[in-house]
Amino acid sequence: MAALDTVLAKIDANLDSALGRLFQLVEIPSISTDPAYAGACARAAEWLADELKGIGCEASVRPTAGHPMIVGHVKAERPDVPHVLFYGHYDVQPPDPLDLWDKPPFEPHIAEAPTGKRIVGRGVADDKGQLMTFVEACRAFKETGGVPCNITFFLEGEEETGSPSLPAFLSGNATELKADMALVCDTGMWDQQTPAITIMLRGLVLEEVVIHAASRDLHSGIFGGAAVNPIHVLARIIADLHDDKGRVALPGFYNGVSELPEEIADQWRELHARGSAFLNDVGLSVPAGEQGRDVLEMVWSRPTCDVNGILGGYTGKGSKTVLPAQASAKFSFRLVGKQDPDEIAENFKDFVKARLPADCRAEFISHGASGALQLPFSSEALSRARRALLAEWGNEPVLAGCGGSIPVVGAFKHDLGMDSLMIGFGLEDDRMHSPNEKYELSSFHKGIRSWARVLNALAL
Amino acid sequence: MAALDTVLAKIDANLDSALGRLFQLVEIPSISTDPAYAGACARAAEWLADELKGIGCEASVRPTAGHPMIVGHVKAERPDVPHVLFYGHYDVQPPDPLDLWDKPPFEPHIAEAPTGKRIVGRGVADDKGQLMTFVEACRAFKETGGVPCNITFFLEGEEETGSPSLPAFLSGNATELKADMALVCDTGMWDQQTPAITIMLRGLVLEEVVIHAASRDLHSGIFGGAAVNPIHVLARIIADLHDDKGRVALPGFYNGVSELPEEIADQWRELHARGSAFLNDVGLSVPAGEQGRDVLEMVWSRPTCDVNGILGGYTGKGSKTVLPAQASAKFSFRLVGKQDPDEIAENFKDFVKARLPADCRAEFISHGASGALQLPFSSEALSRARRALLAEWGNEPVLAGCGGSIPVVGAFKHDLGMDSLMIGFGLEDDRMHSPNEKYELSSFHKGIRSWARVLNALAL
Repeated sequence: MAALDTVLAKIDANLDSALGRLFQLVEIPSISTDPAYAGACARAAEWLADELKGIGCEASVRPTAGHPMIVGHVKAERPDVPHVLFYGHYDVQPPDPLDLWDKPPFEPHIAEAPTGKRIVGRGVADDKGQLMTFVEACRAFKETGGVPCNITFFLEGEEETGSPSLPAFLSGNATELKADMALVCDTGMWDQQTPAITIMLRGLVLEEVVIHAASRDLHSGIFGGAAVNPIHVLARIIADLHDDKGRVALPGFYNGVSELPEEIADQWRELHARGSAFLNDVGLSVPAGEQGRDVLEMVWSRPTCDVNGILGGYTGKGSKTVLPAQASAKFSFRLVGKQDPDEIAENFKDFVKARLPADCRAEFISHGASGALQLPFSSEALSRARRALLAEWGNEPVLAGCGGSIPVVGAFKHDLGMDSLMIGFGLEDDRMHSPNEKYELSSFHKGIRSWARVLNALAL
Repeated sequence: MAALDTVLAKIDANLDSALGRLFQLVEIPSISTDPAYAGACARAAEWLADELKGIGCEASVRPTAGHPMIVGHVKAERPDVPHVLFYGHYDVQPPDPLDLWDKPPFEPHIAEAPTGKRIVGRGVADDKGQLMTFVEACRAFKETGGVPCNITFFLEGEEETGSPSLPAFLSGNATELKADMALVCDTGMWDQQTPAITIMLRGLVLEEVVIHAASRDLHSGIFGGAAVNPIHVLARIIADLHDDKGRVALPGFYNGVSELPEEIADQWRELHARGSAFLNDVGLSVPAGEQGRDVLEMVWSRPTCDVNGILGGYTGKGSKTVLPAQASAKFSFRLVGKQDPDEIAENFKDFVKARLPADCRAEFISHGASGALQLPFSSEALSRARRALLAEWGNEPVLAGCGGSIPVVGAFKHDLGMDSLMIGFGLEDDRMHSPNEKYELSSFHKGIRSWARVLNALAL
């Protein structure tokens, strides 16, 4: 294995050819959701397998019921190094609406912007440019001696359609895919100069409730005042779910929720201003969650309860004096730490039942439950990755939470017993899933260099 | 004017021919909502004008922008008698679904039932049979001498479509139509043996509220916990609108609400059992309104607040982790006594605004406001009508409330300054607006006799 400086110099020297390779991949319209592009997905998979072979991997395209997976393995010279699994996806979103693109979406190009050069094209940020940062880092190692860790590549082509083939593939190939840890390149930076490592993903419990009252819709003139109104019952339940401090009032809800380590809490408080800016961007100014919590805490490390939809009675134009027979709402709970999704679902049902007046019954429809994921704060790999990113960017990486879920990370944890180190170089304004998707050239170039440093650090 | 007994005997003798006349009217398919039946509506109006002429009226068909009105006048011999305006409507609901009728809807016939003979056909109860009870009573007077009161007939053909031509017609013909009081035959009996006089109609305030929060729908993973959820805001408002005793918590809401006179309260308490039965019929068992009130009080003489519709976020199948930009609800307030509809609408808006957190605004859409109507309990006409109905039926008439509104009664009150005495002979199981609509022969026969007694009593 060459000295890190040699590898980084090779990356700099290779940048133009690396861009050329990324453009080749972006030119393949691997839109997973549209059957018309199944051939393009297969070609993207072949292209990637060839690339991996070109950097010394034993690599192959693996068919599934949907689009194929690519698996590749490459070993380090030293025997006592970690084994990492790298995950990325080669499929992209449809480019519609086409007329909002400045140039055709599958003709990638470099554009100039005040923030520097950027790569434009469908999939450059999500996730082709990101996954190629890792591939190009490995190429530079290969060209200067060899990779520092044992690496398994695992690339899929169904991420944008909910990864339907993933669970079966993982369980069918668990022995081959199991590594010491996973590296996932599908997240973002804090800003263009500040890298981030995503260390926590909130869990999710989805419960729908239908409150049934009278056996049919009633005329509110004839029955109003005597017949129970299921919209009122539902509103009472929703109102009762939060106390006046913005905390979730479900019994036992905060079991398993810990306070942040002081170091991370301090870092997030310093980032507060930009945390507020993201509310301003959508027309809001005051964080509406738990009182006394910082906005980043609210969205990254605190659990929530939200109603995502509600429906009852007449909702067309004008008025109709109806007392509906039923009303329904969809609830979601975001979980953190060690909160138990099944226990919370049960407590929620009890909470609803306890608020049913006479003549009402509740019907429950579960739409899934998964716990939160968290990389241990004390993880040695995390410490090494932090130092590596600091060295590349000159700014301490943000240890970020992610309010949403990333299903593959849960699958790695639950099916293969692997934690994931989530490092990515996307930016909030990359227009993923939208016209004129872009990836900063700095993200691509320094992203490759970052992976070289991280792999180097993990192997030390 | 002949003795009442003579008139009643004439009614009994005329019953078969009266039925024949009702059948002729029912055979005319005067469906007001369907333009294909405009000719039938015009024919029904001509038929009625001819009938009124046949009993000595100066009667004419009056064109409107929609279906025509009929106005007729007939004077009593005595000069010092009251002048009453009789209201009914000749238009009917469409008969669909046709295949659920035992016989064609516009081929009226007599059917046998355990409760006696009944007249079956579209419109027999709503309102052709009812209006003909009054016309036939007048015929019997005419055939035995003359009518006991000065009578103006006012029959419309747009009741089933919301009476669009009524306001302009009333204001354009106010002098001609103004009388001492109105008699309205479009309500029901308490049961087949017990007549009713409807003396109170609840008013109605209709307000829609849209709560606006973020400038667009948000991902609940990214923003959940920090972004205000307009569904929660709306639920809190709805929950706050009632206290834990079932009373409406709007400030000043009960201003102008009086307790029932003891005599009526006693009557309603005696009727309690059937009041509860009507809840049982729709799958309910426990009156859900103000604690300590009887069910009939709740629906007839107490004000209410109900949400008739609510909508926000994702309401399709499955789940979507969205925090909606807005949520809306349609509120209705049923008013009684002297509650001021405008004041209540304003108080409601203030109530909502006081519960808006930072970053939220409320949009209000008013769908109308009208006060309650009430015949004074001490009215002499009411006392006379009660005695008249008691004499006919042998049972004290129920002084009923009506939870819904009857727009024409409000128009008579507000535009012509007339109270209405609402007496009708429909029954709850008459299947108005449904297939196999029926009107009990006893309702028709004793209804005619009842009007004869009431007119006689009013003139004494």
